[in-house]
Amino acid sequence: MDVRACLFDVFGTVVDWRTSVSRDLAAFAKGKGIGGVDWLEFAVEWRNLYQPSMEEVRSGRRAFTILDVLHRESLAKLIERYRLKGLLEADIEHMNRVWHRLDPWPDVVEGLRRLKTRFIIAPCSNGNIALMVNLAKRAGLPWDCILGAETARAYKPMPDAYLRSCAQLGLAPGSVMMVAAHNNDLRAAKAQGLKTAFVARPAEHGPGQTTDLKPDPGIDLAPRDFVELAAKLGC
Amino acid sequence: MDVRACLFDVFGTVVDWRTSVSRDLAAFAKGKGIGGVDWLEFAVEWRNLYQPSMEEVRSGRRAFTILDVLHRESLAKLIERYRLKGLLEADIEHMNRVWHRLDPWPDVVEGLRRLKTRFIIAPCSNGNIALMVNLAKRAGLPWDCILGAETARAYKPMPDAYLRSCAQLGLAPGSVMMVAAHNNDLRAAKAQGLKTAFVARPAEHGPGQTTDLKPDPGIDLAPRDFVELAAKLGC
Repeated sequence: MDVRACLFDVFGTVVDWRTSVSRDLAAFAKGKGIGGVDWLEFAVEWRNLYQPSMEEVRSGRRAFTILDVLHRESLAKLIERYRLKGLLEADIEHMNRVWHRLDPWPDVVEGLRRLKTRFIIAPCSNGNIALMVNLAKRAGLPWDCILGAETARAYKPMPDAYLRSCAQLGLAPGSVMMVAAHNNDLRAAKAQGLKTAFVARPAEHGPGQTTDLKPDPGIDLAPRDFVELAAKLGC
Repeated sequence: MDVRACLFDVFGTVVDWRTSVSRDLAAFAKGKGIGGVDWLEFAVEWRNLYQPSMEEVRSGRRAFTILDVLHRESLAKLIERYRLKGLLEADIEHMNRVWHRLDPWPDVVEGLRRLKTRFIIAPCSNGNIALMVNLAKRAGLPWDCILGAETARAYKPMPDAYLRSCAQLGLAPGSVMMVAAHNNDLRAAKAQGLKTAFVARPAEHGPGQTTDLKPDPGIDLAPRDFVELAAKLGC
């Protein structure tokens, strides 16, 4: 395969958002004396508002808006729903930026370091640039650049999210491999001509996960993790 | 100073375009049996077409067009002016991509590595994303992300080139330092509220350079090179 760049989904594929968000918010709540909230449920509820918020943009009903803003609007709904009281503006902003403080799966940093020796590596995430930069600096993700929704002005799985990312690298889609733990992301990338690699993250949704345990037929590679992906690609 | 990110001009400030372009094209021409061209003059003539080509976009006469395309159009003019014959499409593309193969000044990689430990570091160049990524991978520039004209959809020194770069990092302009060897770039950044650092590159234009040997009054820092900049910023 003539692959020159690897693009990565981030939430779920690179980082464990469920554990990271719930643990971070639980510690924050404890410090603020906020009790009685199941923060794992809170994290999942927040994530449940993610697709509907982007759908407003994808449908054209709303101008392109970065994910930090969509996350903040969803958080406001949850603060109301959970009846959280006494939060200052700075507290809410700190909570919203929990998405900038997500931990990577254990294989990620080593795998990316190896892949970077032969390929351009970049996120192609629905997260905005600042979110991706802060997350990468904290976690040590050695991206060559940040691509994705904000640079493409389109949310995945819209075709432009993939096509403009390839164009911004000056590469044909067939020279770019999309790496994700989600078959719908890879189907959309494949439809635009990208190569695809599925890395299962069976703990993304916690115990008893039933989705995305296996790659769809037609996926090019299905390595166990990022380190095996690097090995399969000759790094 | 509450600086969180350093943005860098690239052509002239980070890389020595004049030596790199002329040396690369001279070697290429030798291999192709093309003689009788002063490649240092050719490089300078190419660079002379740079500002007028961007001015078409800045003025609004032309939709935003990436620098690789503007460079290619300028190259076509020079190929005609210098009466270069027998170049294949692949040859012209290789020549155009000489701007992806520029060498950094000797202090750059060490300085950036140190700055990266405390700050977000990114180019804010008129070069497009692919150009910046390829240049960085070849030269070992450890950028956290690629910002500049293509992500801002505006060429420096237009205000949006600076303001959108800060916004994409989620930072106020006063928390961002623009680093350049060109006073006009720094004046434009300062006018938008950014902090400024001037690093003289007295060999950018060859022997006898008379411009940009000293910082304008009002520049925040004027370190000798990137390593001293890192030291002055506590890295």
